[in-house]
Amino acid sequence: MTARHHVIAIGNALVDVITSAPPEFLAERSIAKGSMRLIPAEEAETLYAAMGPGREISGGSAANTVAGMAALGARPAFVGRVAADQLGGVFAHDIRAAGVEFTTAPSAGGAPTGRCLIVVTPDGDRTMNTYLGACQELSEADLDPASVAAAEILYLEGYLWDPPAPRAAMKKAIAVARANHRKIAFTLSDVFCVEGHRADFQDLLAGHVDLMFGNEHEVCALYQTQSLDEAMAELAKHACIAVVTRSSQGAIVLEGGRRHIVAGEQVAKVVDSTGAGDMFAGGFMAAMIEGRSLPDCARVGCITAAEVISHYGARPEADLKALVKARLG
Amino acid sequence: MTARHHVIAIGNALVDVITSAPPEFLAERSIAKGSMRLIPAEEAETLYAAMGPGREISGGSAANTVAGMAALGARPAFVGRVAADQLGGVFAHDIRAAGVEFTTAPSAGGAPTGRCLIVVTPDGDRTMNTYLGACQELSEADLDPASVAAAEILYLEGYLWDPPAPRAAMKKAIAVARANHRKIAFTLSDVFCVEGHRADFQDLLAGHVDLMFGNEHEVCALYQTQSLDEAMAELAKHACIAVVTRSSQGAIVLEGGRRHIVAGEQVAKVVDSTGAGDMFAGGFMAAMIEGRSLPDCARVGCITAAEVISHYGARPEADLKALVKARLG
Repeated sequence: MTARHHVIAIGNALVDVITSAPPEFLAERSIAKGSMRLIPAEEAETLYAAMGPGREISGGSAANTVAGMAALGARPAFVGRVAADQLGGVFAHDIRAAGVEFTTAPSAGGAPTGRCLIVVTPDGDRTMNTYLGACQELSEADLDPASVAAAEILYLEGYLWDPPAPRAAMKKAIAVARANHRKIAFTLSDVFCVEGHRADFQDLLAGHVDLMFGNEHEVCALYQTQSLDEAMAELAKHACIAVVTRSSQGAIVLEGGRRHIVAGEQVAKVVDSTGAGDMFAGGFMAAMIEGRSLPDCARVGCITAAEVISHYGARPEADLKALVKARLG
Repeated sequence: MTARHHVIAIGNALVDVITSAPPEFLAERSIAKGSMRLIPAEEAETLYAAMGPGREISGGSAANTVAGMAALGARPAFVGRVAADQLGGVFAHDIRAAGVEFTTAPSAGGAPTGRCLIVVTPDGDRTMNTYLGACQELSEADLDPASVAAAEILYLEGYLWDPPAPRAAMKKAIAVARANHRKIAFTLSDVFCVEGHRADFQDLLAGHVDLMFGNEHEVCALYQTQSLDEAMAELAKHACIAVVTRSSQGAIVLEGGRRHIVAGEQVAKVVDSTGAGDMFAGGFMAAMIEGRSLPDCARVGCITAAEVISHYGARPEADLKALVKARLG
């Protein structure tokens, strides 16, 4: 018997390598500040060699999201590929220790565990350079259809739409979830993902997805417009709930014809913005599972996102339940 | 030609795995809070499995010390053994990125890179469970006598006196440093080290060491007394400069018949006390190299120790030079 989970997420299984550097470090290497880009193994080696001392902390977008959900009391599972190496062991330990079921077998003999080289500038902005490694070796065979069928929500990471084998696994998961009348949630992940897969993402929103997360830039890129209002007008045509995050300005939830506007949380100092969107989605879905209203789901998302940007690393450090209780009851 | 270093340190090459937990986590496992103990591979696996999500940050006592010295403008070298694995790569990257020369070849095929499983309780106290792994495979053959001969200070970590092969390497280094009229500095490291090697450590202080670091508990253990005054009276019999650290109360420097008493630095919140003693020694020696007075060396030590306990991890994150300049000019 497969245990029933509140959410089963499919995503990149990455360990973040976080360093601090001035903006010049990025400019000298023509790396766009605040961006996320995929880099091959050799470039990862070169960039790592140039980086200052690092902190290794488990990451991965959907993995961060479900780690946050577990901290809020939900029962999540995660599907993603690491290699049978030390960093793979770190990822597996950390996600399990966070309270997330993780049973995907590590790959042996292929690429090493993926890592995200993150440069944090003094303004707290993060620039991500991702070497996917073993992540790309996730395939349909790694998916347990019974687990997907039994989970309330299937959560998919747009980042993982890029490599073909994991994309096939996600497509299969979507079919299983739909056949079993489960909710499907999807995050646009990044402007470069949206630009690379615009037609696919639009198709997903039109017919497959019940809940979408994206920031202002991503939804604008999705509809090739500079106007957030235009993008939201397009999003409102779909049946799904669309949640547009706006950094410190909070979020807008589109639900059919309605808009809920929620203000952002105050943060004393943004140390490292890595994982803000991931933790917003985690807070939102955990609140949804508790049966909170959509505006309150967005409020919980803002509270949990504010926690994760107050320290290095994309996984929560404070007691998220207590934080939410103190703010919303 | 070997480049001349201000300091060459020999120590354990460890990656710290830092988790947060309530004191009950330690009590349930009969682990003495605040202690450091050596654990075998199997116990490291079991303890790691029970620990919460971790942060991997390079550590190792003498390695932390020289990383701090490099941040203060000194030119250090480090000698220690990692394995040719991912954590070994992390250690090597981080110490080089900190500005420390590190050329010890990684071992292949033996034990993996050593790690220190650190449990940080809400009071900021750290409890260390160290699996030495490859550290123990350091031997005399890894020592470049010309480098030791050319460095102003040889710095030795008491922790490494335990395994026999590294101890032999340290003894050889002492002989080379003495023959070349270099300063020898030594840290007592921990009460368990002192208790295991009291006669050796007393012998080192009596005839070989020019500068000793130890905290109150360690110097009391060295002379088997409960009285710090008694221990200091014993220390004062030696020709070496002895520096006794007293946590938040600062430090006492014994120099022949004289005592310099230096107050501690205020710390808003102790997040993680790991590395406080290491960074004190680093600040002290860096200031000594600059030609500061002994009380000012201790003040610099207190300033740099205060920085490292204000965040997770035993390596400095702030601009130490700027911190010292702001406080002492």
